[in-house]
Amino acid sequence: MSETGKKMTLIVFSNDMDRAMAAFILATGAASSGMEVTIFFTFWGISLLRKENHSTPGKKLIERMFGWMLPKGPKGATLSKMNFLGAGTAMMKKVMRDKRMPQLEEYMTMARSLGVKLVACTTSMGIMGIRQEELLDNLEYGGVATYLGEARDSGINLFI
Amino acid sequence: MSETGKKMTLIVFSNDMDRAMAAFILATGAASSGMEVTIFFTFWGISLLRKENHSTPGKKLIERMFGWMLPKGPKGATLSKMNFLGAGTAMMKKVMRDKRMPQLEEYMTMARSLGVKLVACTTSMGIMGIRQEELLDNLEYGGVATYLGEARDSGINLFI
Amino acid sequence: MSETGKKMTLIVFSNDMDRAMAAFILATGAASSGMEVTIFFTFWGISLLRKENHSTPGKKLIERMFGWMLPKGPKGATLSKMNFLGAGTAMMKKVMRDKRMPQLEEYMTMARSLGVKLVACTTSMGIMGIRQEELLDNLEYGGVATYLGEARDSGINLFI
Repeated sequence: MSETGKKMTLIVFSNDMDRAMAAFILATGAASSGMEVTIFFTFWGISLLRKENHSTPGKKLIERMFGWMLPKGPKGATLSKMNFLGAGTAMMKKVMRDKRMPQLEEYMTMARSLGVKLVACTTSMGIMGIRQEELLDNLEYGGVATYLGEARDSGINLFI
Repeated sequence: MSETGKKMTLIVFSNDMDRAMAAFILATGAASSGMEVTIFFTFWGISLLRKENHSTPGKKLIERMFGWMLPKGPKGATLSKMNFLGAGTAMMKKVMRDKRMPQLEEYMTMARSLGVKLVACTTSMGIMGIRQEELLDNLEYGGVATYLGEARDSGINLFI
Repeated sequence: MSETGKKMTLIVFSNDMDRAMAAFILATGAASSGMEVTIFFTFWGISLLRKENHSTPGKKLIERMFGWMLPKGPKGATLSKMNFLGAGTAMMKKVMRDKRMPQLEEYMTMARSLGVKLVACTTSMGIMGIRQEELLDNLEYGGVATYLGEARDSGINLFI
């Protein structure tokens, strides 16, 4: 394996449950096999990192609107297709439980314990008015330069 | 050209007709120029590999529901935008026929005859209750480890 | 940094405002740090390159229909989520102006002045009946072979 074959970066742009699942299945698989994995959460993807219960006082109206409309963490994520007002997502979660597969939030915990680096995009946080205290603890923070620094010597770089 | 410059992998996550077209245009173009190409079909993308007429007895209700709702093969795929209940997709297909471009199902046949490897994601098949006999013949089957093994020494890796 | 670490290619398949923003933030960031960047616009992405006011006489009905339905340039692009008939997109633009961030059309100008190569996919232009005179001046034109030639020795290749 070449040097670059030992690293993978993923940009998670979407907050769809199915796309996030794909990202974390890839990330945990790669980390388990000894690869160094970094996931950058940007735009809608940032909402996957939100704490379930956190309200920040002193926000502007427009920032509060983003807060109301975006899902809070992985449990609020829905399917990109066949959501049917939540029924499709609930069905998918049930099937996964029945087959003893981890749920998205469990994949996220697993990824972190395997050493996958989770980076929140500070530009997106700025746009949506999201503060660090609203996101999971112990994340890393960075912008496009951070991403490029990691991706430049990674063999696998995907935009999800 | 470097060693990794000779290989390409694509993850086809979506079953949208337009995204699948993009994947197969890239795959056939790369294979024609002597590159080694592998396409991994995952989540919704699996439905592109379904046989048109196949029903499997003995499925659970929830598995049959996935069967009914997912398109059967490339002919059932629709545009991700401007579908207009099928009218947009039909219009796009007509334009492509008029310009003597291959249809999606023809691109798939072409890709296979050029040696493009089609791999069905076994994890997704498990979730949706899809069996091997419902999919095209002579596919390969694998999970995230299979993907990483290929992608690690490929110069071009895309998530579509 | 390896040789391939100095190049990045992006395929912009979508014409969503948010995805296009992500592409141009990556492209301008990479070009500013001395990387060689090429963006391929394909399928819906082509519409980001359209001039705002241009009508071409002598088109077939079906080609004129594509012309009416696709947005004309970056100002017509809308969010992939939370668009709410345009209100969400307007809100996002306002937030970005308030935070003194460039708008999409400004990012595009910035990218070009930093030497980012913009390539319009000729296959997609053929399908949608779009002519060179309808697109921005001084673009490059190419198909899948052009893309593969660039991507093969780029360290970062993304499909957006």
